[in-house]
Amino acid sequence: MKIVVVQIVLIYIVCMIDNNFELFMNMAFREANLAYQDEEVPVGAIVVFEDKIIGRGHNQTMQLHDATAHAEMIALSAAYNHFGDWRLENCDLYCTLEPCTMCAGAAVLSRINRIIYGAKDPKFGACGSIFNVPTEKKLNHRIEVISGIMENEISALMKQFFAEIRNKKEQIN
Amino acid sequence: MKIVVVQIVLIYIVCMIDNNFELFMNMAFREANLAYQDEEVPVGAIVVFEDKIIGRGHNQTMQLHDATAHAEMIALSAAYNHFGDWRLENCDLYCTLEPCTMCAGAAVLSRINRIIYGAKDPKFGACGSIFNVPTEKKLNHRIEVISGIMENEISALMKQFFAEIRNKKEQIN
Repeated sequence: MKIVVVQIVLIYIVCMIDNNFELFMNMAFREANLAYQDEEVPVGAIVVFEDKIIGRGHNQTMQLHDATAHAEMIALSAAYNHFGDWRLENCDLYCTLEPCTMCAGAAVLSRINRIIYGAKDPKFGACGSIFNVPTEKKLNHRIEVISGIMENEISALMKQFFAEIRNKKEQIN
Repeated sequence: MKIVVVQIVLIYIVCMIDNNFELFMNMAFREANLAYQDEEVPVGAIVVFEDKIIGRGHNQTMQLHDATAHAEMIALSAAYNHFGDWRLENCDLYCTLEPCTMCAGAAVLSRINRIIYGAKDPKFGACGSIFNVPTEKKLNHRIEVISGIMENEISALMKQFFAEIRNKKEQIN
């Protein structure tokens, strides 16, 4: 009987954690959709502290003519403003796409607690795909990485975006 | 006679290139000194296009409460503004210190032509020390890296800064 109760409690806890991951990733996904509406590569990010969103961002590289205006960088900037501090030690960074070298580096510099991302990025990803920046032992801070949250929806949006880009190019040529 | 002339011309060209490297690194070093005056880790950077400086920056992480406010990121931002474009294809990035993962990643995203840096950074460097971001073949852009320009002066300034920090801490304790 005791074992069954423990099992039920454990399943409940796991479900709660999963729901929280999905809940916050959904907010990052909303940001990705804002980027999509602006015809930017649809990537979104949020920073979460004690279950509250303290930073949001979506990719704005084309709009701002700024290669560093990635969703994660904008969300981190908002989080620095929230605290008036560059240390985000107890904060989680949710990203729809696996962060690139720059963004993973920025997360380490900011001492982010966890990176939670949706879809892998085999071309630029630096959380396992090309580099593994968050878990590199030589750096002064390491970040736990959780991946695959809402992967299907996020991948579908990315595919749709790039298919539309290809179609537009074909129509022009 | 011909061989001697060719040799002299070659030596002259090499000297000119070296002088240019030193000339521009000196400008980045001036930026590092500005950071030093503000009691920031003394790192400076400039972006050069056709022998003209189009972006400058010095480390302002403490002042701006922003972990991403590295010299290189600020210099790149100024260069985007100069062109109204995020592509810096024919630009060189001069940095007093080996760029970190974030800054090296940003340079690759910006399609920088060359990174020229002064002193190695064994703790954070991502141009050979911990990672080698600029020359990673899996990424969509590769950057030539030249190092060791004004290394002694730059290292001396860094050492002086950290010695002063240690002294201040000892006086407090």
